[in-house]
Amino acid sequence: MPNVRLALAQTNPIVGDLVQNSQQIIDAVLRAREAGANLVVFGEMSLTGYPIEDLATRRSFITACGEALGQLQTNLAAPTFSDMAVVLGLPTLATHSNGWAIANNSAIVLINGKIAGNYQKHHLPNYSVFDEYRNFVAEDVSASFEFGGLNFSLLICEDIWQEGGPVSRIKTSRTDVTLVLNGSPFEVDKDDRRLQLVKQLATKQDCAVAYVNLVGGQDDLVFDGDSLFVDATGNLVGRAAQFSSDLMIVDIASKVAAAVTTAHEIQKQDDLWQVWNALVLGLRDYVLKNGFKSVVLGLSGGIDSAVCASLAVDALGSERVFGISMPSKYSSDHSKSDAFDLAARLNISIETHAIESLVQPFESELKLTGLAAENLQARMRGAILMSLSNLEGHLVLTTGNKTEIAVGYSTIYGDSVGGFAPIKDVEKTLVWKLAEWRNAFATSRGEVAPIPQNSIDKPPSAELRPDQVDQDTLPEYEVLDAILDQYIERRMGLAEIVAQGFDAGLAARVIGLVDQAEWKRRQGAIGPKITGMAFGRDRRLPITNKFRK
Amino acid sequence: MPNVRLALAQTNPIVGDLVQNSQQIIDAVLRAREAGANLVVFGEMSLTGYPIEDLATRRSFITACGEALGQLQTNLAAPTFSDMAVVLGLPTLATHSNGWAIANNSAIVLINGKIAGNYQKHHLPNYSVFDEYRNFVAEDVSASFEFGGLNFSLLICEDIWQEGGPVSRIKTSRTDVTLVLNGSPFEVDKDDRRLQLVKQLATKQDCAVAYVNLVGGQDDLVFDGDSLFVDATGNLVGRAAQFSSDLMIVDIASKVAAAVTTAHEIQKQDDLWQVWNALVLGLRDYVLKNGFKSVVLGLSGGIDSAVCASLAVDALGSERVFGISMPSKYSSDHSKSDAFDLAARLNISIETHAIESLVQPFESELKLTGLAAENLQARMRGAILMSLSNLEGHLVLTTGNKTEIAVGYSTIYGDSVGGFAPIKDVEKTLVWKLAEWRNAFATSRGEVAPIPQNSIDKPPSAELRPDQVDQDTLPEYEVLDAILDQYIERRMGLAEIVAQGFDAGLAARVIGLVDQAEWKRRQGAIGPKITGMAFGRDRRLPITNKFRK
Repeated sequence: MPNVRLALAQTNPIVGDLVQNSQQIIDAVLRAREAGANLVVFGEMSLTGYPIEDLATRRSFITACGEALGQLQTNLAAPTFSDMAVVLGLPTLATHSNGWAIANNSAIVLINGKIAGNYQKHHLPNYSVFDEYRNFVAEDVSASFEFGGLNFSLLICEDIWQEGGPVSRIKTSRTDVTLVLNGSPFEVDKDDRRLQLVKQLATKQDCAVAYVNLVGGQDDLVFDGDSLFVDATGNLVGRAAQFSSDLMIVDIASKVAAAVTTAHEIQKQDDLWQVWNALVLGLRDYVLKNGFKSVVLGLSGGIDSAVCASLAVDALGSERVFGISMPSKYSSDHSKSDAFDLAARLNISIETHAIESLVQPFESELKLTGLAAENLQARMRGAILMSLSNLEGHLVLTTGNKTEIAVGYSTIYGDSVGGFAPIKDVEKTLVWKLAEWRNAFATSRGEVAPIPQNSIDKPPSAELRPDQVDQDTLPEYEVLDAILDQYIERRMGLAEIVAQGFDAGLAARVIGLVDQAEWKRRQGAIGPKITGMAFGRDRRLPITNKFRK
Repeated sequence: MPNVRLALAQTNPIVGDLVQNSQQIIDAVLRAREAGANLVVFGEMSLTGYPIEDLATRRSFITACGEALGQLQTNLAAPTFSDMAVVLGLPTLATHSNGWAIANNSAIVLINGKIAGNYQKHHLPNYSVFDEYRNFVAEDVSASFEFGGLNFSLLICEDIWQEGGPVSRIKTSRTDVTLVLNGSPFEVDKDDRRLQLVKQLATKQDCAVAYVNLVGGQDDLVFDGDSLFVDATGNLVGRAAQFSSDLMIVDIASKVAAAVTTAHEIQKQDDLWQVWNALVLGLRDYVLKNGFKSVVLGLSGGIDSAVCASLAVDALGSERVFGISMPSKYSSDHSKSDAFDLAARLNISIETHAIESLVQPFESELKLTGLAAENLQARMRGAILMSLSNLEGHLVLTTGNKTEIAVGYSTIYGDSVGGFAPIKDVEKTLVWKLAEWRNAFATSRGEVAPIPQNSIDKPPSAELRPDQVDQDTLPEYEVLDAILDQYIERRMGLAEIVAQGFDAGLAARVIGLVDQAEWKRRQGAIGPKITGMAFGRDRRLPITNKFRK
């Protein structure tokens, strides 16, 4: 007979929607109760969504969170929930302020609606996409509580990624199970690092660990769930779904004896599956959480727009995705036919608006030549998409990939228009891999491969002048992506990149392109982060900056 | 006979331009030497410019700074500089890392080219526009050195804005003069707070204070200089220029006996003068530091574009400013004549490109109506400006003010196109005040008032449909700006705003408009911060956010 039946409640809150998020919590507790659980643990900031950014510095918001907690306490005091313990995350007013920060990042234990324990995060991540030292006040406390004959301790996310503080005191407090509330966004390979970390925590501090993560897209972040239960021997007992809401039930008799009672696979899917699903979830949640009903995007016949359209269909369904073909006099026949082939495969609407009649009056009014004439074509296409968005309410998707955003190979206010950029953090070579993976995935399930093989195979081209291909101006994508990885993701300088064997002139040129495109990136749409260094709040560099080494 | 002749060297470095900034330092030391000074103090990060953002986390950058310091040491070891002490700011490799941070924010004392003292900043601001906890490692050390018979201590910027740490140990170290290196950006009224703070430091710690600030525009920040020397009695001895490079020489016999030997006014100019000059400097430095030769902007005949054009002329001179009139069928006669009047007053080029022939093909292709048709006009104007930028190399200025950016009263990829937004942080009511101030300033000097009175007096209108005025859709600007001040600058919530006496429905509507325009602001151009809460890195909120209280 287990002492505790624990539910790891992996919810998908919407930032700032306290009513909806509270309802999610109550619903999950109800389902946990129905499954016989007596302890339910949620992710970090499960009441508010995460990250709340500077909302944390507004007194009115912290007050509203307190009120929402009060309402939850009333609801959880009902007989239905008697003797259940619920652990959730929210910001609470701190006893002192630090800069603009007035709140702690807290975990609260509720039993019969009463506060039976509380914990304030100690290690506040303030690197990468995180601004927690800006937004929260750190504390150095420990929090334990006894429940069902077992000792539980609380930690929050970054607390287990750093040395010292509360994590180092778990063992001395004779903890059976450490409950870790997390808001840990997806990055390729991060699941392996998290599991390793949780196993280390378990064996080093001699306790079982319930690691509960949020799930869902929030602006540029995708929380992938993948909550974990590891026992004190470091054995992975259970793993919740990745990229969907979930409730995993674990029966715990002791720190070394635990079993998952729900149907959960330990085996993870491969990296391409994970990236694809991260992009789908990030896109879907941006669209739905912001109240859009549909998306529109330009279909050029190229690989980027094909992958974006496929992601959109996986995220929203065919009927909510609207493709627009906008050929110019430089568009090849295959670019039009490939776009229509894609639309047929995806079963989405496609409409054609040729741009020649729009471009012509500009060219005669302004005597455009060269780059100005090329950019104008992209800008007319952008204006068409925005007009259709204004008319029909679609969210415009912009289809730029990480490589072209890195080197500025796009027209600002042209192909970059849109509210969301599904493959913003996907380098070009990975775009191809994803396309092939998605087609193979379809084929393996007896479905139509969504992406025309011709879009995968043909040399990429912006088609803004006759016979143009990307490699007229850019190095081969394999080389370019390799240099960009060094410069952006590994933060290497020129000398370090050259030491890796890359041509010095080429590396210097790529660095120059990246630095000079900073102003464009600042005005770019957000898109889901999947790497260790995404453009946006993950990488903060001045526009005015003469350093090129 | 004074012991020490101190030069406060207020330089304008370019971020990342180590060669140029080193040359600036040598030049200033030379001029100081010529003026008989033996101690020269520069601002925070004077070698690199400030803020360097995530450059601080790149090993290659910190290494390059070390090399530049070595070169400076060699240069300062020359006989010309014998027995001079030079204090400058730069990042140095820290002994440990913190998150991504690997460097200290340091001050170094060089005498005869040798390092005679060093200090690492203790209080790292990580609120408002500052990300120093992200970018630097904090230390808790004190640094003093003896020179010319006086004791000097070092502090850096935020160290004097917070309690505790090195600032609290100044008195016990029997300091005669505290040298404070600063990178303190302009905000209205901040000069008064700085002076108060420096006086407090002087009297509380019983020492004279040399407060040296940087000057110049760096992206969205304007460093205003305004370096100060205050003696130990709290007496303001001297004040360097505001908004220009400067070298102020102070003879110091003791902590209470000091005198400025250069011609420097103690009296400050009024707030409107300061705001105007901050905007001029921010715009000029963005243009020049990024290598542009000229700017182009749309002239609508309205107040915003008139003020932006005047700022541009003050920043760059008439010959570098290009105005474009882009009338539509809805444009009133006065909007065209006011634009030409402005151009004549400013003596700038003006060119007309009517948009009707560009709009027409779109309207027939896409059957545009309502908002879509209105936005299209703005987008055709944006495409004209960008085409001219592509053809002629001008930087495009976008003329939106803070009020319209707050409530989203603009067309994205339309009137918002451009690389720099000169009045981005200027609310509409202040735009009018600045226009009147600038005209009066001109008149008082016997010059032509730059801004047509009609542009100041007429009701503001986007002129995107017949007889449209802003107040068809927006509350009166006096009321709107007052509500925005509460919501944005004071970070109040709905209940708090209503408690100030504002109509609850109106306040809720304004909050909704501000929150829903977050996605547009993310894609907006940068512009100079002049308030306590500018849009951009000063105010970080999620796009996906349902909190409306």
